Formats: sequence, C-alpha cells, structure tokens
Amino acid sequence: MDIDYQSCLNEIYEETKGLLGKGKVADYIPALAEVDPNQYGICVHTLEGQTYYVGDAKTPFSIQSISKVFVLSMVFAALGDSIWSRMGREPSGSSFNSLVLLETENGKPRNPFINAGALVTTDCLLSISKNPLKDILVYVRNLANNKYINYDSVVANSEMETNFRNAALLNFMKSFSNINNDVNEVLNTYCHQCALMMSCEDIAKAFSYLANGGINPFNNKRLLTLSQTKRLNALMQTCGLYDESGEFAFCTGLPGKSGVGGGIVAIIPKLLTICVWSPELNKHGNSLVGMKALELFTTKTGISIF
Amino acid sequence: MDIDYQSCLNEIYEETKGLLGKGKVADYIPALAEVDPNQYGICVHTLEGQTYYVGDAKTPFSIQSISKVFVLSMVFAALGDSIWSRMGREPSGSSFNSLVLLETENGKPRNPFINAGALVTTDCLLSISKNPLKDILVYVRNLANNKYINYDSVVANSEMETNFRNAALLNFMKSFSNINNDVNEVLNTYCHQCALMMSCEDIAKAFSYLANGGINPFNNKRLLTLSQTKRLNALMQTCGLYDESGEFAFCTGLPGKSGVGGGIVAIIPKLLTICVWSPELNKHGNSLVGMKALELFTTKTGISIF
Amino acid sequence: MDIDYQSCLNEIYEETKGLLGKGKVADYIPALAEVDPNQYGICVHTLEGQTYYVGDAKTPFSIQSISKVFVLSMVFAALGDSIWSRMGREPSGSSFNSLVLLETENGKPRNPFINAGALVTTDCLLSISKNPLKDILVYVRNLANNKYINYDSVVANSEMETNFRNAALLNFMKSFSNINNDVNEVLNTYCHQCALMMSCEDIAKAFSYLANGGINPFNNKRLLTLSQTKRLNALMQTCGLYDESGEFAFCTGLPGKSGVGGGIVAIIPKLLTICVWSPELNKHGNSLVGMKALELFTTKTGISIF
Amino acid sequence: MDIDYQSCLNEIYEETKGLLGKGKVADYIPALAEVDPNQYGICVHTLEGQTYYVGDAKTPFSIQSISKVFVLSMVFAALGDSIWSRMGREPSGSSFNSLVLLETENGKPRNPFINAGALVTTDCLLSISKNPLKDILVYVRNLANNKYINYDSVVANSEMETNFRNAALLNFMKSFSNINNDVNEVLNTYCHQCALMMSCEDIAKAFSYLANGGINPFNNKRLLTLSQTKRLNALMQTCGLYDESGEFAFCTGLPGKSGVGGGIVAIIPKLLTICVWSPELNKHGNSLVGMKALELFTTKTGISIF
Repeated sequence: MDIDYQSCLNEIYEETKGLLGKGKVADYIPALAEVDPNQYGICVHTLEGQTYYVGDAKTPFSIQSISKVFVLSMVFAALGDSIWSRMGREPSGSSFNSLVLLETENGKPRNPFINAGALVTTDCLLSISKNPLKDILVYVRNLANNKYINYDSVVANSEMETNFRNAALLNFMKSFSNINNDVNEVLNTYCHQCALMMSCEDIAKAFSYLANGGINPFNNKRLLTLSQTKRLNALMQTCGLYDESGEFAFCTGLPGKSGVGGGIVAIIPKLLTICVWSPELNKHGNSLVGMKALELFTTKTGISIF
Repeated sequence: MDIDYQSCLNEIYEETKGLLGKGKVADYIPALAEVDPNQYGICVHTLEGQTYYVGDAKTPFSIQSISKVFVLSMVFAALGDSIWSRMGREPSGSSFNSLVLLETENGKPRNPFINAGALVTTDCLLSISKNPLKDILVYVRNLANNKYINYDSVVANSEMETNFRNAALLNFMKSFSNINNDVNEVLNTYCHQCALMMSCEDIAKAFSYLANGGINPFNNKRLLTLSQTKRLNALMQTCGLYDESGEFAFCTGLPGKSGVGGGIVAIIPKLLTICVWSPELNKHGNSLVGMKALELFTTKTGISIF
Repeated sequence: MDIDYQSCLNEIYEETKGLLGKGKVADYIPALAEVDPNQYGICVHTLEGQTYYVGDAKTPFSIQSISKVFVLSMVFAALGDSIWSRMGREPSGSSFNSLVLLETENGKPRNPFINAGALVTTDCLLSISKNPLKDILVYVRNLANNKYINYDSVVANSEMETNFRNAALLNFMKSFSNINNDVNEVLNTYCHQCALMMSCEDIAKAFSYLANGGINPFNNKRLLTLSQTKRLNALMQTCGLYDESGEFAFCTGLPGKSGVGGGIVAIIPKLLTICVWSPELNKHGNSLVGMKALELFTTKTGISIF
Repeated sequence: MDIDYQSCLNEIYEETKGLLGKGKVADYIPALAEVDPNQYGICVHTLEGQTYYVGDAKTPFSIQSISKVFVLSMVFAALGDSIWSRMGREPSGSSFNSLVLLETENGKPRNPFINAGALVTTDCLLSISKNPLKDILVYVRNLANNKYINYDSVVANSEMETNFRNAALLNFMKSFSNINNDVNEVLNTYCHQCALMMSCEDIAKAFSYLANGGINPFNNKRLLTLSQTKRLNALMQTCGLYDESGEFAFCTGLPGKSGVGGGIVAIIPKLLTICVWSPELNKHGNSLVGMKALELFTTKTGISIF
C-alpha cells in the first residue's frame, strides 16, 4: 500500500482549516491563554524515516499532558509493574482533573493519564532521580533527536501560581499516603514537564519508539520491552484523551495522547506517528481541529489497527 | 509467521486449568448458578477457515452479555449513527449495572455494552422489528453457521423473575424518555438474547465478521460497513469488559466482549477470533480463567494490534 | 404571650401574594399540572382548638409527599424501631427522587421522607395491612376529624402511568431485597396515598397529634408514644423538605413537611400547627409562596423551638 | 419542673461508663492519639448560673470542630448574611472531610460545619481580622469567662504537618476562587482554632449565649441578634454532627456540635447547655460515650425542643 502522505496532509489541512475559530484556547493557565489561536500544523513521521509536514508543524508549543507519556515511560522502564500498585489502568469516565473517584478509591488514581495519575508518576520519578528536570530533558531530546528542546519557564511558573487544583490532588493523595515526596517539589516538576516546548515534528519523532516496539529509532536504544510498549499503547487507546478517549478510539481507532496546549499525537504501530496541533479546544479539553484532522487521516488512508 | 494454534491452545489449557476453583459462578440468576463450574474450553477460528479446539469448546453455554454485540450490530446496520443520540461511546468507569452515571447524565447510558446501553439497544430493535426474538435467532444462526442455536427458556424466565436491577434501569431511563417501548417487552427480549446458548466454537465463528471487515465469511454477506466494523471493534476495545476493559486492553491488547456466563471472545482483525469459556468469574464479573487464557494467547503468539 | 393569629395570617397573606406567578406548578404528573396556580391559603390550628384561616384554606388539594408522615406514623406505631433496619434517619443531601446514594448504600434509603424511604414505608404497611388504602383513609379521616377526605383517583391513576422514576426506585431496592411486596402493589398504594385530597384546614388539624405529644386531640387516642412523637418531629426537622430541609430549618426553625402539590405543614410543639398551600414550586420542589409565608410566620410571632 | 441535674448526671455517668473501651481515639493527628482514652466528664450549665459536674469535667481537651461554632459566630456577626454566598446551609449527607460534593457544587461547601465550610469561615475571619489567633482567643475566653484558655501548640503543629486532607480542600476551593487568603495562613489559623484546650465546663459556659438568645450571660454583651442565634441553633440541629446529624437529632432532639477530640455540646434554648467529653469515637467520628450520655440526658429529664 503506497500512500501519498503529503497530499493527504494537504487535503486534510484544507478541509479542516475552516474549523479554526470554533474552539476555545485553554485559559486556566494565564501564559497559555495568550497563544495565537490561529496556528495549525500537522506532521507525519514514518518508521522508514520520512517526515511530512503541513502548516505550523515546526512551531514549538506547550506539550502539557503529552508529557505524561514520556515520564510514564521513564518510570515504567525503571520500576516495572510495581508502579501499578499506586495507580490503575482503567478509564476513569471522568474529566482529567476530577477528585471524585479518588475519594471512593482511597487516593489511588484510575490511570496514569488523568492528572492524579500523572502526579503519582512524577512522584515516582522524584524517588529515583536526583535531577528529574534534567533527566526528563535528556530523555525527550534523545527521543525527538533535537537537543534544543527546553522548558518554557514562564509557562511553568504561571502554572505553579495558579495550579490549585493539582495542589489539591497532590495533598489529597498524600492524605492517603500515595505521594512520597514533597508536594511542592512534585508540583514544580510536573509544571515543568507540562511546559516542555515541542513542535509537531518533535512530538511525532519523539513518539516513534512506541510505534517501533520500544526502540528509539534515532539511536537504536531500547527504552521499553516489547510487552511494555504494547501496554503503553493500549493505555493510550483506552485512557489517552480524558473523557473523550472512547470517542477518539471510536472515530480514529488509534492509540493517542492529547494536551491542553492543543497537541494530539497518535501512533500506528509498526508504521508511523502523527502529531496535530491547533490551540483551540473542544469542551472535553482536546484540540477541536486536531480531533477532526486525525479522524480524516484514518478515513483517507484507510489505516486502522482494527 | 506460522503459528501452531493447536499446540498453543493445549499449552494454555494446561497452564491455566489449575485456576479452576478460584472464581465464583454468577449466582444472581438462579438458573445460571447451577452450571458445573469445572467446565473449560477454548476455540480459535481463523479467517482462512481453520478451527482449533481444546476442552469443552463445543458445549453450549449462556452467552449473556456477549449478545449485546449481536443486537448492536443489527440496530447499527439498520439505524446508523442515529443510535448515538441515545447512548454514548465512552467507558463508564463503573460496574455493568450501575445507575449512578445515568442520573447525572439524564438517562443516556455511557455506552452500549453496560446494561443500560444494551437495554436501549434492545429497545431500538423492538422499534424496527416485528418479531425481535426470531430476528435475533436468524441473525446469530447465520453468523455462527449453525441452525441449531436457540434460547434457553429456563434461563430467560429465571432472569425475568429476578431481574429487578434491569427493570430499575429500564424504568429509570423511561423516566428520561429514553425507552420507547413497553418496559416488560424490552426486558423479555433482553432476557432472551442473554439466554442464547452457544459454544465457544459458535461464538468464535459468529464474531468472524468483525475480524473480516463486516462480511460474514460463511455466506459472504456484508452486515456492517468497513467503517462501522472498525468502530464496533474500537468500542469493544474500550468498553467490552465492563470496569475491567482497561485491564483487558492492557493485558491482551485486543478488542473483546465478555458475559457473566463465563465466556469471553476476542478479535484479531484480519486474522482470527478466539473464544474462551469457564463459568467461574473474578470480582469484576469476567471469567477468571478466561482472562488469563487470553493474556497467555497474545503472549505466546506475539499477536497484538499494537 | 397573646398572639393575634388572624391579623398575623392576614398580614402574611398581603405581603406574600405578590409572589404568585414566580414559581412553577409541578408538571411531572399530568393531572397535577392542570391545577389553577393562583390559589393560596393558610390555616393555623391551635392545640386549644382554635382555627384561623386566610385565602383558599378550605380548598382540598393533592397532598402528595405530606402523606409520607401519615404512613410512617402508622408503621412506626405498629412495628417500632424495627423499621430502621430498612431505612436510615439521616438527611440525604440529594433531591427527593435520587437513586445515587441507594446504590452505594445497598438499597437502604437515607430517610423515610425521600421517595425511596417512603416507598419502603408503604411496603411495610402492605405487610401488616389487609386493606392498606382503606386503613390509610380511616387513619387520616380520624386525624383531620373529617370523614369526607378521599383519594383523587384521576391523580392516582395519572401518577401510576407516568411514575417510571418511582418504579425504578422500587425495582432497584427490590434488587437489594429491601422491598417485600409486589412492586406494582406498592406503587399503587403509594400513588393513592399521594393523591389524598385535603385542605390546609384538614392538614393543620391532622398534624395536631404531632404537636400534642402523639395524642389525636379530636378523640384523645394515643397514636405514638411521646418519644416516637419527638423523633418524628426531629426527622421532619432534618429531612422534611428534601434538599431544602436545612434552609427551611435555618429560616423557620420548625419541623415541617412539604409536598409537590404545593402544601407545607409545620409544627410548633405544644402550641399549634400551620399549613400553607400554593401550587407554584421553587426549584427544590417546595411551594415558593409557602416557604416565604412560614418564614414570615415565625418572624412575626417570634415563635421558635430554638 | 424541678430537675435534680446532679443526680441525673451521676446516673448517666454510672450507666454509660461501661462503654469506655468500645470506641477508638482519633489517630489521624499524632498528638491527639496520645490522649488517655479513659477520661470522661459531663458538665451542665444553666442560664440561671448553676453548674453541675461529673467525672473529668474540668480537664481541658482539644475542642477540634467545636471551634467551628465560635468562628462562625464571629464572622456571622461581622459580615451578616453575605457569608452564605460562599457556603450553603444544607446537610451534606457525607462525611466531614469529603471532597465529592465540592466538585459538583463548584467549590461551595454545603454548610459551615463540614471541614470545607469551616475553612471558608476561617478564610472570612482572616479577611476581617488583623490578628485572628488573638481575636479568637479573646472571643472564646469572654464566652467561657475563663482567661486561661489557650491553644495547644503541639496539637496545632502536629495538625499542620499531617493535614493534607484540609490542604487539599483549601486548594480545591481556591481553584474555584472560594478562598481569598493564602492557603497556608488559613490552614494555620484553622489548626490553631481546632487546638483550643477547653474543659466541659468551659464549653458548656461558652455556648450559653446560644441558649440565651445571643447574649453572653457573663458580661451581658450581645454577640448575635435573636434571629441569628436561632439560625445558628438550627444549623447545629441539621448539620452539627457530620453524617450523624440526623441520628443525633432523632435520639436527642437537640442542636449540638461535636469534635474529634471527643467533646459534644448540646443546647436547650432558654434553659441550659451541656457538654460531654470522652475521647473514644464511634465510626462517624463522634464520641461514642457522649452520644449515649446525651440521649440519656433528654430521656431522663424529659427535656426536648419537640
């Protein structure tokens, strides 16, 4: 099957750019609210090494929750299945920052991709890393094969000052003894990982190891076992887009992960990764244009895991 | 890749039969509680037409919730995407018969594979079929290529008499105007579809159309479009095993559907279907041995959609 | 303290009649929706035997949930504290017909004044009465000293046909084995008790036994022990007005009970009872004018239990 | 009615002391867990100025949530009904430190006597007081007519270090903009008010103003209007004992307030106040012996507001 990805991306771009203006840029982090809403880019990166672009695919943006996958990879590789004693692997059926289930489930988050679970993941990292901010940066730069990736301190600090919901989640879980490190240190690391600036190209490349059985194609280093890789993909499939995970699976059939910065990345195992970015979100907190673009991509290419 | 499915099934059977006795047969339906708990069978059916068996793979059992997929196929084919105005496509994060989310979400079930959604599905069928019990039977017999499949009236009537929870769900949804037909008629049809008696072989064959892009391989009739087929598989992936759907996806990486009769069916698109049956359930209501057997199957064969 | 109740009622009536038109008549029972919304009456009945009226105080209306107190009295007297094994005595914090707490609390309603608890109460009555509809009528006629009180069959049947929410509650509780009689028989009795037609005068008189230590002042028969009487009053104080019980206690300081027919009755122990009626409800399902009238009554008279 | 309160207290003490050892001292604050569990005292203080004691009625203990009433009085007097825009007046139906309702109700606590509401109350105080810790102390000393009342810094600091649940509540409400001051400052004041050391005698005296129409009987200063006093009593009646408020109203018929230090105070308007203390708690977090003692007190004296 020979697919002309470039034409495909061009078509999708034309068909969806009319949706710009219909969503709403995330405003709960002041520094994010200032982003130009009219930006839109897509990048496809194949395991054979080709890269295809359209629009603002090379503009770095705040990756936000997409960072949850990187940190989870780091601690899953280091700690193995022991991490699952502290968080589950089930969809939550709730929004990304809900506290309700945490209360009935004794401070154990449903999965690592809701905020509560991601905070536990970051807490795990703090327990095994002396310099977590540096380690994350090295990890992500190697994945994306780009040594210029960095944190946006303005966004990170803006989040620290307004991040009362995540502080609530951390304190709540600590009251159940499910946070081991200092609440403010976990929060600081978390706000920084969310404030990583990466372009569609960076992200598409950085997720290639999940399409590639756990091996970083840029340096051939294995980061996860084959089994761990499959499991991470399965988790993204069931939990990657908050309470729109089912909808995303239904419409695209792909494992993926989104962030409130407007990025969505999806993985087609053994073939390619694709990242779309447009800052305006739908009511579930996922990029409005991005959701449509990825649905069109699977429709037009006929690619599906099912 | 040449896999010796027969040896694989034999191995799995040997490695897991020691788990018999560790679960609990469903006791909320009196007629089901009498089933011999020590039965255990597996059947693989490939799209090339080969069938492999081990154990009690030809013994008919009560398929229970596995029937939800058949009825959903019928109404999805007939009514298209209009059915989604009456039920969602998201994991519920709750147990199969919970009413909680229904209340906050105005009587619209999260997805068609929790009981509430399956009852709406059956209500849809009643609105388009003059003889739903006959139509279901014809549909399933054609799928499984077995004209002897039938309802177990004892189980169906046993369920009718003890089915207060489902009667509550139906009345509750009707109070939100999301049930159009008579509550007792919907309940009667639902209890009968759950009481279909099929063997592992029957079920593996009957699900082949979902591995086969929507076409029944036994008569080459298209039942669903390719897109509908993918979407049904995605739904099974995210919602097929109640509040253990994430765990099943994590461990097997496959779309599947379980029933409290102890059956679990899984689909490997474009390749095969597999059905396991053992009546003893884990605490989430899924076959304890079946869960393990399917995890082993993907581990041993290396088959995965990810 | 000599209070001129008549002048007081006249003042209240004048000061509050301007609120007519600001609420909404209950529309979930078709027969109730047809009531003339502009009716408004108040009746005070003292333990010394005086009765004071203003407005439509002699017009019978559908007492609805006010009936819950009568039936609870009947079964509390007959069965004693054993009834509390089947329902609690705590405010629910939820609306009158919520199913949510029932699920987490295994089918045991929070208190006898939410619908679920009232249905359990009626189920208790069915277990001890051969002719519950006749027994209720005799009981209430004696309390109100009015042998013409009767059921409105049109309202009762209208409720039976549209009462899917209560049917859901009954079936749900039966699935937890907390309903002993036939669901439809319980529902029929419940719909009839709610459809009792009584005027403000009837209700004020009928509640006198609760201001009078448990003794019906019209025939000097003891219906409840002194201790049971206090406890019923305490229950009304904490749970009598659904999820507005706290607000009512805060504003009036009195035990009371409301119904969606627009009636609210309040009790001043050892002194008097007062019943207000106006069909238009606020968003919590309590009479909008009635709430204000009772607040004014305690403000103007300075009467309070605190 | 001449009641021999001293004999009554002696009787109650004898009849209930056998319950010592059946509860569990609060262990979530380390410094509280070290309290000798076998202490037990009762004090009755009448508006006529008599004081009756039994047991350890003069031993100071940590008043914990009983302090919520004092701080609420201070801000209710200063800010009037405007405080109700930030918290409700309804029973919550949940345990004292639940976050669940806060999420669905946008960070507005149900009432001022659950932790969330008390934290909002303390936040109100910080907005109007330059030295809240000093102001609270002056207020309480005047109420109890005891200038030696003070904070237990060990308990206060112990709470600060382990108070992750309250830190979660504060951050959560701040994320809804319902906390105006610094989270740590509110928490520090709150932990200190909870760590006030008072004896049964102190507390019985200090609550006299609520039996006395809002006037401190020791200096004849009005602290609340008559109407505010009634309303505070009504609030205690419906919400004073967490999710056992209905049970307490049912069994004693009195407005009251409890703390996890093992104290419970109850008010009989126009007559007296009574405070019981015994550190062992029942499963709802209220003094096990105290609940029984107060029920006996109303049974033996026949005193009731109903």
